Amino acid sequence: MSLPKGYTIRRLQPSDYSKGVLKTLESLTTVGSISEPDFHKLVSHWNTVKDISGKYNIYNPLVILDESEVIVATGMIFIEEKIIHGLGLVGHIEDISVLSSQQGKKLGKFLIDELTRIGKEYGCYKIILDCDRKNVGFYEKCGYHEAGVEMQIRF
Amino acid sequence: MSLPKGYTIRRLQPSDYSKGVLKTLESLTTVGSISEPDFHKLVSHWNTVKDISGKYNIYNPLVILDESEVIVATGMIFIEEKIIHGLGLVGHIEDISVLSSQQGKKLGKFLIDELTRIGKEYGCYKIILDCDRKNVGFYEKCGYHEAGVEMQIRF
Ligand SMILES: CC(=O)N[C@@H]1[C@@H](O)[C@H](O)[C@@H](COP(=O)(O)O)O[C@@H]1O
Ligand SMILES: CC(=O)N[C@@H]1[C@@H](O)[C@H](O)[C@@H](COP(=O)(O)O)O[C@@H]1O
Repeated sequence: MSLPKGYTIRRLQPSDYSKGVLKTLESLTTVGSISEPDFHKLVSHWNTVKDISGKYNIYNPLVILDESEVIVATGMIFIEEKIIHGLGLVGHIEDISVLSSQQGKKLGKFLIDELTRIGKEYGCYKIILDCDRKNVGFYEKCGYHEAGVEMQIRF
Repeated sequence: MSLPKGYTIRRLQPSDYSKGVLKTLESLTTVGSISEPDFHKLVSHWNTVKDISGKYNIYNPLVILDESEVIVATGMIFIEEKIIHGLGLVGHIEDISVLSSQQGKKLGKFLIDELTRIGKEYGCYKIILDCDRKNVGFYEKCGYHEAGVEMQIRF
């Protein structure tokens, strides 16, 4: 599988504010108003959070850009360092969003495959994600299967 | 609600290896063999992983000890720093285990209440957790409700 001609995928950068990442996230949920300096600070912070070896990033946010360098899809995997499973690692896939005008190009599948590859390379014993029941079929096509119930409390 | 007489709750410490935490985790899942130095290193590392302000811990592991200072329950909340919801925070509750010989003392409920309080104080807009269908009722008593489906891939 490959990206449409001219499209690229890479790590989200602190300087990406004006490239449309917030608009892309709005197709997932509420984003709210975020200033450019605050965005820059968060994404820079993500680049400093390392695993126990000090070498690898805990936050791994990816973006897909179209041929005019606009961000049209995004998603991340962050790595949790646990005690169980012999100090095992669990990858959490979060905040997957694809601009609705870009649906049908398999960008979501490409993104999940890349994030899954990152988690596997990292040595995670499993990768998990939470989704709406209506998206189960999509994640099954990406190799995932139902494992449990997501519970939440909101404030 | 309170703990049984003589029981205490506090943050897990790097020096807690010999207090029974691994045995308690075995009532949840596979723990594997973990050496004392490796345990010490991981829990010390958890103490160094901070949020964007540099002030607050991302990993917040708690333990409940009985009157003889043995760990009989454990669980953690870690905090994910997101872009969505105005640079919102999400708490993830993980690795809840109560020694089976200690069931019926409401230690699980006490633990979840404490972890929920930590996530709320932190300013999380929500706290999530994944569980087996058979534990939904327990988490409902703790104020949680069903939100979605947990999907996973294992390696
Ligand atoms: C696989 C995936 O992308 N799951 C996302 C999750 O990462 C995101 O944080 C949440 C936002 O919803 P909220 O606005 O209700 O918190 O939606 C979905 O569950
Ligand atoms: C709320 C809670 O405690 N959920 C736990 C989760 O934190 C833990 O990581 C997992 C281990 O199962 P595993 O050994 O299959 O990864 O079990 C449960 O889902």
